[in-house]
Amino acid sequence: MLEKIDLSKKMEKELYKQRSDELGLRLGRLQRACKEQGIPVMIVVEGLSAAGKGTLINELIEPLDPRGFTVYAVKDPTEEERHYPFLWRFWNMLPPKGRINIYDSSWYRRVSANYFDGSTSEKQLTDAYDEIKNFEKQLTDDGMVLIKLFCHISRDEQKKRMKKLLDNKETAWRVTDADLKRNKKYDEYIEICEEMLRRTDSAYAPWEVVEAMDRRFATVKILSIVAGVLEQELEKRKHKKPPVIDSRLNKDKEMTSSSLNKVDLSNTLTREEYVKQKKELQNRLSLLHSELYRRRIPVVLGFEGWDAGGKGGAIKRLTQALDPRGYAVHPTASPNDIEKAHHYLWRFWTNMPKAGHVAIFDRTWYGRVMVERIEGFCSADEWSRAYTEINDMERHLANFGAIVIKFWMQIDKDEQERRFKERQANPDKNWKITDEDWRNREKWDAYEIAVDEMLIRTSTTYAPWVIVEGNDKYYARIKVLRTVVEAIEARLKKLDQQGD
Amino acid sequence: MLEKIDLSKKMEKELYKQRSDELGLRLGRLQRACKEQGIPVMIVVEGLSAAGKGTLINELIEPLDPRGFTVYAVKDPTEEERHYPFLWRFWNMLPPKGRINIYDSSWYRRVSANYFDGSTSEKQLTDAYDEIKNFEKQLTDDGMVLIKLFCHISRDEQKKRMKKLLDNKETAWRVTDADLKRNKKYDEYIEICEEMLRRTDSAYAPWEVVEAMDRRFATVKILSIVAGVLEQELEKRKHKKPPVIDSRLNKDKEMTSSSLNKVDLSNTLTREEYVKQKKELQNRLSLLHSELYRRRIPVVLGFEGWDAGGKGGAIKRLTQALDPRGYAVHPTASPNDIEKAHHYLWRFWTNMPKAGHVAIFDRTWYGRVMVERIEGFCSADEWSRAYTEINDMERHLANFGAIVIKFWMQIDKDEQERRFKERQANPDKNWKITDEDWRNREKWDAYEIAVDEMLIRTSTTYAPWVIVEGNDKYYARIKVLRTVVEAIEARLKKLDQQGD
Repeated sequence: MLEKIDLSKKMEKELYKQRSDELGLRLGRLQRACKEQGIPVMIVVEGLSAAGKGTLINELIEPLDPRGFTVYAVKDPTEEERHYPFLWRFWNMLPPKGRINIYDSSWYRRVSANYFDGSTSEKQLTDAYDEIKNFEKQLTDDGMVLIKLFCHISRDEQKKRMKKLLDNKETAWRVTDADLKRNKKYDEYIEICEEMLRRTDSAYAPWEVVEAMDRRFATVKILSIVAGVLEQELEKRKHKKPPVIDSRLNKDKEMTSSSLNKVDLSNTLTREEYVKQKKELQNRLSLLHSELYRRRIPVVLGFEGWDAGGKGGAIKRLTQALDPRGYAVHPTASPNDIEKAHHYLWRFWTNMPKAGHVAIFDRTWYGRVMVERIEGFCSADEWSRAYTEINDMERHLANFGAIVIKFWMQIDKDEQERRFKERQANPDKNWKITDEDWRNREKWDAYEIAVDEMLIRTSTTYAPWVIVEGNDKYYARIKVLRTVVEAIEARLKKLDQQGD
Repeated sequence: MLEKIDLSKKMEKELYKQRSDELGLRLGRLQRACKEQGIPVMIVVEGLSAAGKGTLINELIEPLDPRGFTVYAVKDPTEEERHYPFLWRFWNMLPPKGRINIYDSSWYRRVSANYFDGSTSEKQLTDAYDEIKNFEKQLTDDGMVLIKLFCHISRDEQKKRMKKLLDNKETAWRVTDADLKRNKKYDEYIEICEEMLRRTDSAYAPWEVVEAMDRRFATVKILSIVAGVLEQELEKRKHKKPPVIDSRLNKDKEMTSSSLNKVDLSNTLTREEYVKQKKELQNRLSLLHSELYRRRIPVVLGFEGWDAGGKGGAIKRLTQALDPRGYAVHPTASPNDIEKAHHYLWRFWTNMPKAGHVAIFDRTWYGRVMVERIEGFCSADEWSRAYTEINDMERHLANFGAIVIKFWMQIDKDEQERRFKERQANPDKNWKITDEDWRNREKWDAYEIAVDEMLIRTSTTYAPWVIVEGNDKYYARIKVLRTVVEAIEARLKKLDQQGD
C-alpha cells in the first residue's frame, strides 16, 4: 500500500491558495450542517514521525469554528490509564452528536509505535486488531463519521526534518529517541504500518494515505477528503429510509429455545442455612476482594431480571462484604441528555472498573435488547446488532483480564404480583413500586421472548449469564454470592497455576 | 480541641445493636427523602491512621441503598492531578443533587498529612486554608450538606493497631512508612490536626470529632450525627422562604460608577496595519505557547461581551497562533441536565486547563451575574454572592500559577444593529443570529447595569478585566492578541527574575 504511493506530489502556491480558500468555506458550512443534524465526526491523523501531523491539523482546523471541535494529542497511556482496558480512554474521548474530534495519533498507536517498541505483545496485538475493528464498526453503525488519515513521508525526508528540529535548541525536545529509532529502522516500521492499514481498512472506516512531503499538497488533500466525506454523509442522510421498528424478529415462539422455562423455581433455603452460608461466603469474599486489589484484577457484575426479582437485595449482600473504596454500584436509569448524545454503550464504558476494582451494574447495557427493543426506542437493526456489540465489549473486558458475570434474577409472574403488593403495603418499601412496574408486567410475554433470545445470544465462556432462581430470596442471594466467590477463586487458582 | 476528647467511651453490644438498627432504618428513609428533594450530601471522614476510617465507612453505608452513594478513597494526587489546581480533582468528585458522596480522606490531606510530610509548603498551606474555606462556603451556600468527621484515637492505641496490621502478612502492606512516622511524632501531628480543625470549623461546615477507640461507640456516633444533620436539613427546607428574585439591587443608576461609558469606541486600525500587527503578534504568541508548555504555565482566557461584539473573531485570531494540542475552546450554552444538578461553577471547574495548557471560554461563569441575574434564573442572594465566589475561584487559579484574563468586547448599540442586519443578509453568517439576540438587545440597559457592576466587583490584580473597544474589528482583535502576548511575556520575565 505505502510503497505504491507517489511521494513526489507538490502544489504551487497560487493553486494552493485558491483551493484551500474554497475548501475552507465549504468546510465551515459543512461543520454547521453536521452540527445541525447532530452528526458526530472523528478524524484520526496517523502517520510517520515528522510527517507534520501537527501542522496539518492546524491547517485543517483553520476554517472550522473553534467552538465545535476538540483536538486530542494521544500519547502513550499513563500509569492510571494502563489500569483500564485499552480502548477505555478512547471511549472517554468520543465526540457527542454534532461535534468533531480530531486525534493526533490514536488507538492505532497500540498496533504501530507501541508494537514496534515492544510494549504491545503479540497476544495484545491480535486482540487489539479485533478490538479496534469492533470499536470502529460499532461507532460507525451508530452514525459516527470516522475519517482516518495516514501521513506518509520518505525515509530521507524524515531524517532531514528530524535533523532540522534537533539543530534548533527550541525544537530539539520534540524529537524523541523512539522517533530516531523508527527512522533508523524505517523499512521495518513501514512494514508494521502497512500491516495496520491493511488489517483495519474497511468500507465503514477506510484509510486515506496522505502524501506529506509537500505541506501545500497535503493540506489540500486533507481538506478535500474531509469535505468530501462530510458531503457524502449529508447526502446519504437525505435519502435515508426511516428505520424499521420491530420488537420481534423470531415470530415463531414454538421454534425458539427457552432457558427460562427450564428454571426450577422451587429451590429454597431455611433462614438458618441462609445466615450460616451468607456469613461464610461473605468472609471469603471479603478476603478475596483484597486479593483482587493486590493482583489488580477487575470485576464486572451485571444484574438484570424481572422487576422485584431481588436485584437490590442480592447486590446488598455482595457489597456488605466489599471494601467501599474498591467497588462502585452503578444504577442504570433512562439516559440523560449527554448519554443520549452518545453511543448507547458509552455510559457503561466510562463506568468500567479499573484494575483491582469491582463495578456492579444494577440494570445494564442489556437494556438495548430488552426495554429498548420492546418499547421501540431503537430500530430492529439496532437491537439486532447489539448482541454482537455487547459480546465484543465483554470480550474486550475479558481480554484485559476482567472477570465478567451477568445475573438474571428469575421469578414467576405470581411471585412478582405477591411482591408488588407487599411493597405497596409497606411504607418503607412502597417507593420501590411505580405505575410503570405494573405496566411492564403487562408485557411479560414480550419480555420473555426478548430475554430468552438475549440469554442465548450473549452467554459466552468469558462472560456467562447465570440464571438465579429467585422465588426464594435466601436461595437467590446465596447463589449470587457463591457464584461470585467461586468465579474469583477459580481465576486466582488459574493465575497461580500460570505462575502469575 | 482534641486533648479534651474523652477517649475512654465505649458501648455495650446489646445497646449498640438496638441503636444501630434504629439509626439504620432512619438513615434509609433519610437517604430516600434527600434523593426525592434533590439534596446533595458530602460526608468527609478524616482522622488518624488506623483510626478505622474504612471500617466506620462500611458501617455507615450498611443501611444505605448502594445505588445512591459513592465512596472515594482519596490518596496523594497523581502526577496528572498535580497538573491541575489543588481543588480541581474534588470539583470532579462532587455529588449531583440527590446523591451522597463519602470521602475516605479528602482535601484536608493537603493541610494535614501532606503538610506534615513536607509536600505542602508554608505558602501553599496558607492558600489551601483559604481555598478550602471558600470551597465549602460556596458549596453549602448552594444547598450542599457537608458533614465532616474526624476520627480520633490515642497514640498507644494507634501503635497497637499498626503493630497488629504489620504482624499479619496479609495486612502489613496497609501500614506505610508515613503512617509509622506520624505515630512516632504523634504530638506534632496532633498539633497540625488541631490547627486544621480550628481553622476550618464553621457554622456551615462544622467538624465533629469521633472517639474511635471503640468501634461500636464510633459507629453509633457517626450514624447519629449523619441522621441528625439530614433530619435538620429536611426540616429546614420545609420552612424555607421562597428566594427573592430581583435583578437590581443598586437602584440608583446615577450613583453607580460606569466603566462602559468611558470607553472610547472611535479607535480604529487600517487593514494594512492590522495584517502587519496580526502577523507579528501571532508569531510571538506561537513561540510563547511552546514556552508556556515547557514551563507548565496554565492560561485561562474568558470572553464576554455584547452579542455580535466580536468574541468569535477575536478567539479565532488567538487560536490561529496556538498549537491545537495545547488549547481548548469551551463554548458556554445553557446548562444541560447534569450541569443543572451541580453548582453553577462546576462545569467551568471541570474544564480548567492543566499546567501548560490554554483554556478559552466563549462566554463564561459570569453568566451568573448577567443573564441569570437579568432573567431571574437565580435569586438575588445567589447572584450577589457570586462576585465573591468568582473572585475566589479565579484567585485559586492564580495561586496555582495560572494567567487569568477576562475580555469584555464592547460595542455600541448602533454598531450591534448594523452587525445583526449584516449577519442576517449573509447566508454564511445568518446562523449566528437568532430571535433571542434581538430579544436580549431590548434589555440593553439592564445588561449595562449588570455589566458595570460585574466589571467593578470582579476586576482583580490577579485576574483583570480588559475592556476591548470593539466597534472596529481590526482594532479589537489586535488589542486582544497584544494583551495576551504581553501578559505571557510579563509572566515569563517575572519567573526569569525569580530564577524559575
